[in-house]
Amino acid sequence: MIESSKLSSSQGVLRYGMVGGGAGAFIGDVHRKTAAFDGKCALAAGAFSRDFDVTKQTGIELGLDEDRLYPDFAAMAEKEAAREDGIDFAVIAAPNYIHFEAAKAFLESGIHVVCEKPFTFTLEQAIDLKRIAENKGLLLCVMYSYSGYPMLRQARAMARAGEIGEVLMVMGEYPQDWLIEVIEGEQRQAAWRTDQAMAGVSNCTGDIGSHIENTAAFVTGLKIKRLLARLDIVGQGRTLDTNSAVLLEYESGATGMYWSSQVAIGNDNALTLRVYGTKGSIEWEQEYPNVLRFTRAGEPTRTLNRGHGYLHPAAASRLPSGHSEGYHEAFANIYSRFADALLKLQSGEALTAEELDFPNADDGIEGVKFIHACVESSKKDSQWVEL
Amino acid sequence: MIESSKLSSSQGVLRYGMVGGGAGAFIGDVHRKTAAFDGKCALAAGAFSRDFDVTKQTGIELGLDEDRLYPDFAAMAEKEAAREDGIDFAVIAAPNYIHFEAAKAFLESGIHVVCEKPFTFTLEQAIDLKRIAENKGLLLCVMYSYSGYPMLRQARAMARAGEIGEVLMVMGEYPQDWLIEVIEGEQRQAAWRTDQAMAGVSNCTGDIGSHIENTAAFVTGLKIKRLLARLDIVGQGRTLDTNSAVLLEYESGATGMYWSSQVAIGNDNALTLRVYGTKGSIEWEQEYPNVLRFTRAGEPTRTLNRGHGYLHPAAASRLPSGHSEGYHEAFANIYSRFADALLKLQSGEALTAEELDFPNADDGIEGVKFIHACVESSKKDSQWVEL
Amino acid sequence: MIESSKLSSSQGVLRYGMVGGGAGAFIGDVHRKTAAFDGKCALAAGAFSRDFDVTKQTGIELGLDEDRLYPDFAAMAEKEAAREDGIDFAVIAAPNYIHFEAAKAFLESGIHVVCEKPFTFTLEQAIDLKRIAENKGLLLCVMYSYSGYPMLRQARAMARAGEIGEVLMVMGEYPQDWLIEVIEGEQRQAAWRTDQAMAGVSNCTGDIGSHIENTAAFVTGLKIKRLLARLDIVGQGRTLDTNSAVLLEYESGATGMYWSSQVAIGNDNALTLRVYGTKGSIEWEQEYPNVLRFTRAGEPTRTLNRGHGYLHPAAASRLPSGHSEGYHEAFANIYSRFADALLKLQSGEALTAEELDFPNADDGIEGVKFIHACVESSKKDSQWVEL
Amino acid sequence: MIESSKLSSSQGVLRYGMVGGGAGAFIGDVHRKTAAFDGKCALAAGAFSRDFDVTKQTGIELGLDEDRLYPDFAAMAEKEAAREDGIDFAVIAAPNYIHFEAAKAFLESGIHVVCEKPFTFTLEQAIDLKRIAENKGLLLCVMYSYSGYPMLRQARAMARAGEIGEVLMVMGEYPQDWLIEVIEGEQRQAAWRTDQAMAGVSNCTGDIGSHIENTAAFVTGLKIKRLLARLDIVGQGRTLDTNSAVLLEYESGATGMYWSSQVAIGNDNALTLRVYGTKGSIEWEQEYPNVLRFTRAGEPTRTLNRGHGYLHPAAASRLPSGHSEGYHEAFANIYSRFADALLKLQSGEALTAEELDFPNADDGIEGVKFIHACVESSKKDSQWVEL
Repeated sequence: MIESSKLSSSQGVLRYGMVGGGAGAFIGDVHRKTAAFDGKCALAAGAFSRDFDVTKQTGIELGLDEDRLYPDFAAMAEKEAAREDGIDFAVIAAPNYIHFEAAKAFLESGIHVVCEKPFTFTLEQAIDLKRIAENKGLLLCVMYSYSGYPMLRQARAMARAGEIGEVLMVMGEYPQDWLIEVIEGEQRQAAWRTDQAMAGVSNCTGDIGSHIENTAAFVTGLKIKRLLARLDIVGQGRTLDTNSAVLLEYESGATGMYWSSQVAIGNDNALTLRVYGTKGSIEWEQEYPNVLRFTRAGEPTRTLNRGHGYLHPAAASRLPSGHSEGYHEAFANIYSRFADALLKLQSGEALTAEELDFPNADDGIEGVKFIHACVESSKKDSQWVEL
Repeated sequence: MIESSKLSSSQGVLRYGMVGGGAGAFIGDVHRKTAAFDGKCALAAGAFSRDFDVTKQTGIELGLDEDRLYPDFAAMAEKEAAREDGIDFAVIAAPNYIHFEAAKAFLESGIHVVCEKPFTFTLEQAIDLKRIAENKGLLLCVMYSYSGYPMLRQARAMARAGEIGEVLMVMGEYPQDWLIEVIEGEQRQAAWRTDQAMAGVSNCTGDIGSHIENTAAFVTGLKIKRLLARLDIVGQGRTLDTNSAVLLEYESGATGMYWSSQVAIGNDNALTLRVYGTKGSIEWEQEYPNVLRFTRAGEPTRTLNRGHGYLHPAAASRLPSGHSEGYHEAFANIYSRFADALLKLQSGEALTAEELDFPNADDGIEGVKFIHACVESSKKDSQWVEL
Repeated sequence: MIESSKLSSSQGVLRYGMVGGGAGAFIGDVHRKTAAFDGKCALAAGAFSRDFDVTKQTGIELGLDEDRLYPDFAAMAEKEAAREDGIDFAVIAAPNYIHFEAAKAFLESGIHVVCEKPFTFTLEQAIDLKRIAENKGLLLCVMYSYSGYPMLRQARAMARAGEIGEVLMVMGEYPQDWLIEVIEGEQRQAAWRTDQAMAGVSNCTGDIGSHIENTAAFVTGLKIKRLLARLDIVGQGRTLDTNSAVLLEYESGATGMYWSSQVAIGNDNALTLRVYGTKGSIEWEQEYPNVLRFTRAGEPTRTLNRGHGYLHPAAASRLPSGHSEGYHEAFANIYSRFADALLKLQSGEALTAEELDFPNADDGIEGVKFIHACVESSKKDSQWVEL
Repeated sequence: MIESSKLSSSQGVLRYGMVGGGAGAFIGDVHRKTAAFDGKCALAAGAFSRDFDVTKQTGIELGLDEDRLYPDFAAMAEKEAAREDGIDFAVIAAPNYIHFEAAKAFLESGIHVVCEKPFTFTLEQAIDLKRIAENKGLLLCVMYSYSGYPMLRQARAMARAGEIGEVLMVMGEYPQDWLIEVIEGEQRQAAWRTDQAMAGVSNCTGDIGSHIENTAAFVTGLKIKRLLARLDIVGQGRTLDTNSAVLLEYESGATGMYWSSQVAIGNDNALTLRVYGTKGSIEWEQEYPNVLRFTRAGEPTRTLNRGHGYLHPAAASRLPSGHSEGYHEAFANIYSRFADALLKLQSGEALTAEELDFPNADDGIEGVKFIHACVESSKKDSQWVEL
């Protein structure tokens, strides 16, 4: 059970600090906009860049006090922990290689953490962070953002309620095309993701294959028993995978195929999950997140739309049907649940499992396992690897 | 030319007050979330409801100071105008019948205005507001929110650049189905829209037909020369239209058909605009706002995606392609442009036409004309009415 | 009641002769392929062209006996009627201006008729043909081919069974773009359709608007009470409409909008019918004929697929679901029903109404009425015209 | 080089006999309708069933002479070869286990052959048939029908012309759901396909996985170097695969993933091929065969439509764009090319490679190799198998 380790925030608004997310970073801005979306979280501190000047400039633009801008996460963790009005949680939106050290520093300082995925470089690191958080009674959210989409939550509710029967096959794919040219020289996002020192053992599988893994697990609850993978590198001079094909066997006996790619021309972020069961199937696409296709055996396919009365309460959303919600709202949904849990925790109340409904260290751990198993199998010429 | 009538806001963040948008109101919350989206506007005052208790409760939940919660818009306009730290602009997100009086009160108090559509009950009122704003050098934004969608801005840029040639036909439609049952008794949104005293001369044409009119004008720049309409009332006991069919002739000689409906089962907010020209065509759907279909004569249809490098600068957006933006971002785009213009105006600089790129009183006036012409034609058994 | 006027065909295969359909004609070849599709009809005679040499060449290529190739329809009607093994029916697949005279000649010679649409130039002609056929006990099929599509028949079965409740609105459209350039000089299909002498009072409304009219009537059974129309001519030097906008009021009180165009870039044969009722709606597209969208109020849209067990028997088709059927099969379905009826008639049995389930003179008459009413309304500056 | 072994047919119409295709058989009827579609082939003989009574009944319904109905293929081959007016070619549309013996019998009797896929049980048999046909100068067509779709031919033309650059990945899938219930007891199509004695070593991979293999090879020309597979059996009591996952490495270094399934609810015949290259990509779906999606790197996706002037001559088709062609026309296209080749061969002329543009023994051989490699890999726990 998790208990509060901190005094409650003033006025029910949580203060947070951010690691990464300097000017020009895409995901940092998404975190800031969406943490603020429901008025539950306010940015109070930052170590936005390895370059302190960038941090200061970003912080000023964002209206932060200068004394809460830090040269690095270690300083932020130490100083904020010491303040009366210190941050309630830290958001780690920096390249992968920073995740472990930064998360550890905040957790050890008694500060809750929201961390980008993939969680850590090694499984040991991931388990370590989970252990620290548990020992300290701290919340640890790993930002698998797609689990915030209402219609994916609808898919989960339906799958868990048995509406498609027992799962037989899981087909997941996440094609992109932004690395079809070797743009690492000019493009920051590409530069760190294709660099082992910053991204870890994998690029494509780690960055987007892990989203398939999490999305499939989120919806079906299936545990991977073993997998085999073939990771390919497309692009002169690269050392990490840009295309990844995986066959899976789940503990239940169901099977799966996951394909992720950064070199599939014509695709942006075309994450698609299709789950086939003994009674029905569901299909969801990240690029058209407001709809979910559902087919019962022998019946016409139904297209479910976000915002309708026929949906499960878990698919609750902000806008009426027919007005698109997207990526920002998915993030905001996770921040909203995280903030609700943290505010309740701070108020001294115990949290139920349902109130801890955001992606957490366990999801992070599964992700790290998945990535390493894929890399290992590919190195062994696609032999099966047990998880 | 518009000049500043007010001291500049502290720290570049504009303060605004809201009329309407009490707890349970859909559009008020959208205004608040999206005005705040880019950190340029902060809510500072409110008259959220005709019931002052509701206003106070809403205001407290939103963290406002109690002395900036008002029983009505008139009080807000008077008191805020008198404060050193008074609001920079007012957002009018209340039912139609309040628009004119409220907008007038704020403008006359020297406060800029963002007003929901349809603008006013009568054309005279609309012209009156425009005149007051101009005389006082105040900004007046009429919230035709769909014009904030990046791909609709792309459509405009392409149409204006001649990529589809001279426009021949405009096909616009906006079907919904939420009024297929007579729910006015229980549902607030339905109650005021179907009530002449609160909605004006039209329900369907005024509420959503006007969106077609504005969207078509926004993209094509065409002026309506004359139109004929058939407005129908579906639903026992109703007195305002719920289905609206319009034929149009533009000044250029192009023709159009607009269909709006609140009783077309299977549709949520399916605004679709198709513009056919002598060289090509464009098609955009509000429910799938991230794509735009474009066809040149004799060539395959191209599906343009938000976020890509091949788009016009006017289609700039926040997220990379493949991560959906939606309704909130469209609103936020308009607030962002409005705020930029207002901040510049407050700094004492003159604004260029390009910097006034948000829907304004002229759009509001065209909308009122359109609604009245439709109602008049329908009453005359669908005779042509000149605009 | 219709009785046989002819001896039965040998071996259950009907012989037919064709008017029009010389080399290069698109629709003649479709008639030949699809009349033969189920082995029930065999081509035996032809007057394929005004140019007898073309007829002879076409006939030889098709393996016909030379003595059954005729310089014109009149000769064919006379000679075939006199033969022991004369044709059972005639197919009139020539430009509109020939329909009346040719159909009359065959009917008066005691030969059944399949005629292309639009049926005749004038309403009097249409009624005349109907009367002759009835008096002689002959079958008269007017080839509204789209009514042969299985999923449109499913739509009819559902609408007639009350699955969408009482019809409120009918939205029909048929955009094409093949006449966006003035190609009449080089293209035969364009040449006769844009020529009043050959096409009659209308091009666009007559050629494709009439398909909307028939499709809507086929599915809903609604009778048009009155309509208003605006017909426009796009294209230098043209005298007949290429774009047609129609508002309709049906006898039941339902309303409709029909749009047809030959100058809407990006469209081939995009006939779409949407019918909205008090309980549900259906939507069908000619270019994707194997699916039908159906929505019940408050439920997700269902996509029904041809070939499935959940369909009405009326939607019976040849191929399993998932293997596309198209235009040829739609034609073949009509020929198949026409041939079944004719064979039964020849066997001396009386036909039930259900066995006469192909488009007939009444459909042709409604089509002629519709075209004339549209032209008349447009001439009167879009006044309502009663049907 | 292939030379004629037979006298030319009368009037340019080829006579053929059919093995299999008795009443109730789906594919036999498709062969008959589509062989006849262009008037180039006429059914003249049949051994439609193992039950001679069924053959006789079917033959009479089809209007065949009784003396050309045979108790088995052996009798047909012998007797027809001896007739002056004997069949030009035989169509083998019977279950897999009959393919080899029947094809052999006809070829050895000097009769050309069109054989359903998968070609034979063993690779040796497939090679044997190819050898016999070559020695005798006979045409041997293996009916991979999807290669007859015009837009798949367009895909091939584009891929071969380098429009997508060098192929990187091939994603093929063919999900169905008709075997989700164990219907073998009542359904003939299911009964033989799930029976090793009649279907061979595989059900799903052999029946539909082989279509992916052929379609991918047809479009890309890539040769498979090695593959690994996981074949699963869903359904109580079954002994052959109903779900099949395959990873592939081509000789060029490209990689692929093929998924076929007969238990994926919501799918009918959803064969989809996506080919990703260094410059662009193409995507085609069998259920929507009239369109092809094509994307060049950095450009919007183009949707190419059958029948348009911008297509490659190889994509020639019968109907104008916007009138669907489907499965029947795809078959008919192959029959048409086969018939043209055979007629020319019979006229004594030599055939060019381009005139032999129908799926042949080599395609059949590749299919058999593919099926066996998949089965072998799956038995070896998904190890790579070289082809």
